[in-house]
Amino acid sequence: MNSSTPPQSRQPRSESFVHPFLEAAHGRAPARPPVWIMRQAGRYLPDYRRVRKLFPSFLDFCRSPEHVAEVTVQPVDQIGVDAAILFSDILVLLPPMGLNLEFVEGEGPVVHNPIRDAAAIEALPGGDVNVDLNYVFQGIQLTLRDLAGYVPLIGFAGGPFTVASYMVEGGSSKELAKLKGLMFSNPKAYHMLLEKLATITGAYLCEQIRQGVDAVTIMDSWAGYLSPSDYREFVFPHTRSVIAHVRSQFPKTPLIHYANGAPTLLGDFVNLGADVVGLDWRVELPQAFKEHPAQTFQGNLDPCYLFAPPEKIVAKVHEMKAIAGNRPHIWNLGHGILPTTPVENARAFVQAVHGEI
Amino acid sequence: MNSSTPPQSRQPRSESFVHPFLEAAHGRAPARPPVWIMRQAGRYLPDYRRVRKLFPSFLDFCRSPEHVAEVTVQPVDQIGVDAAILFSDILVLLPPMGLNLEFVEGEGPVVHNPIRDAAAIEALPGGDVNVDLNYVFQGIQLTLRDLAGYVPLIGFAGGPFTVASYMVEGGSSKELAKLKGLMFSNPKAYHMLLEKLATITGAYLCEQIRQGVDAVTIMDSWAGYLSPSDYREFVFPHTRSVIAHVRSQFPKTPLIHYANGAPTLLGDFVNLGADVVGLDWRVELPQAFKEHPAQTFQGNLDPCYLFAPPEKIVAKVHEMKAIAGNRPHIWNLGHGILPTTPVENARAFVQAVHGEI
Repeated sequence: MNSSTPPQSRQPRSESFVHPFLEAAHGRAPARPPVWIMRQAGRYLPDYRRVRKLFPSFLDFCRSPEHVAEVTVQPVDQIGVDAAILFSDILVLLPPMGLNLEFVEGEGPVVHNPIRDAAAIEALPGGDVNVDLNYVFQGIQLTLRDLAGYVPLIGFAGGPFTVASYMVEGGSSKELAKLKGLMFSNPKAYHMLLEKLATITGAYLCEQIRQGVDAVTIMDSWAGYLSPSDYREFVFPHTRSVIAHVRSQFPKTPLIHYANGAPTLLGDFVNLGADVVGLDWRVELPQAFKEHPAQTFQGNLDPCYLFAPPEKIVAKVHEMKAIAGNRPHIWNLGHGILPTTPVENARAFVQAVHGEI
Repeated sequence: MNSSTPPQSRQPRSESFVHPFLEAAHGRAPARPPVWIMRQAGRYLPDYRRVRKLFPSFLDFCRSPEHVAEVTVQPVDQIGVDAAILFSDILVLLPPMGLNLEFVEGEGPVVHNPIRDAAAIEALPGGDVNVDLNYVFQGIQLTLRDLAGYVPLIGFAGGPFTVASYMVEGGSSKELAKLKGLMFSNPKAYHMLLEKLATITGAYLCEQIRQGVDAVTIMDSWAGYLSPSDYREFVFPHTRSVIAHVRSQFPKTPLIHYANGAPTLLGDFVNLGADVVGLDWRVELPQAFKEHPAQTFQGNLDPCYLFAPPEKIVAKVHEMKAIAGNRPHIWNLGHGILPTTPVENARAFVQAVHGEI
């Protein structure tokens, strides 16, 4: 379905409508609890898979603004989420930086010319690479047209550490041995890489905001692979510099920080200065709420909980809502929705947050 | 090298010698800091790789007691560790339970007939499967003969949750979606599976002790994939029942518990009742020491730190030793040593702990 004609579910908003997602992201109590799902425009949706099949290459899919808009809007119509997140990938920054990126079926991202030494890092671009990412900005334009203000649109980028991991490892890695090897043996070269990525990432997020996204999120998925002291030395300053740059340009646009598998770093994430801190399911909500009373959080249901029957999902959400009380909170999973998740269970999650079931 | 003739490095111990590893495991201050390395008998050692090549199948290698003894002793001679850990695999329990296990080159363990429903769980054996694991016990005998008391021998088993993950997922998994799906949708069947595994695991560890191992460790590598409340409901009772059973039979044999990626569960691990709690690098040593003054810990250097040059490894170990002070502590990495680790760096780690460099 091309969504330029809104379906019945997307009624025009009244002029006085205030989006619950934006209210909560600004730390104010929303009229009803807002919810979106990481990777909500994705493989668990049959309509997404239909569009995906049109492209032999995943990158070509990301580079087709019409189809980006189509799958970005799908979960708004089909699941009822309160925000759309632009369909794209954190690795779109790599080709403009000179890296030969390919998404290999069944294997994931592969970088055919990984960065392994100081010379390769020095040769990387030091300024923004926005000019090569016009297809992303066109996708934002078309999505905004299709959403027509029904829900806010979230843009995103990877955290410098997470993006660096693919550049150095040459793909996904269970250990990050090469990136950490560089970090521990040649910290100067490592920091140069992260500084360049922080500059590029900050400029990229700012351009997304200029193009009209209503909020941005930084996905630092692999931050939990580090010890707390290594995170503080090797990652925190670079992520903070991205956030500070975006803040200086767009002080009013909500910024979400998300990391996975790092429950002991919660205090550090709060100190990064984002408006919203995403939590994975390893963080205990009552403790997080107690320790950081003024911080808006996002999350944190285990994505595997969506394999339970809907009535158990509903019971679990009600239990979590009782913990959150009237606190501004953005409901989400603790990580991306899994491809084998039943669609009706994703819908049950959203409806339970909304108090509809 | 067959090690029935001890090399020069393994001098006979005097009768009054007290093993630092056992002292620390019993919570007493050892004469010098003891150190061993998870997966120390493994792929980073050229001599291990030579022996490994004799067997097309990894399981056949595990089933050859002479070769098990040979590779178990290698790191004692070549790296200078203070304890040997039996070369084996946590999944040796699976074939006696009727599971068709294969280690596929480049892919890891594959279970060709995974357990997916209550009927399959009911059909699993409910008592011990020790009679089918004689090759393990013969390996223990030959290793003890070769070690000749030079260092203690550690036996091990997987935690019931971690072993169950392979049985249900059919192999390694990044998400544990099938196991968690079973857990959240059919908790009764899930608990039956874990109860059976706890019984089998407890009996297996007891038989290892009967055969002469000096300590045992429970490797619950995937426990960090759960939220704290799910860990407490779905894993803790079963791991505790294994520990309680071993304790009741062998109250004086030190028992180590290790889990990965679960820093917020530290207090729960302490409550399991093991003598030693293994820490991965996500736990901050000063905080762990402060919060649990009476608990002996093991760990917790990031295995990737062994890719730094030896002088940096030495500096890092000295920094960690200053934190530990005179506290009984068992030095180790926070997870298994990685196959690409330079041997001289593993040796530098051990020598730095010993204060030799």
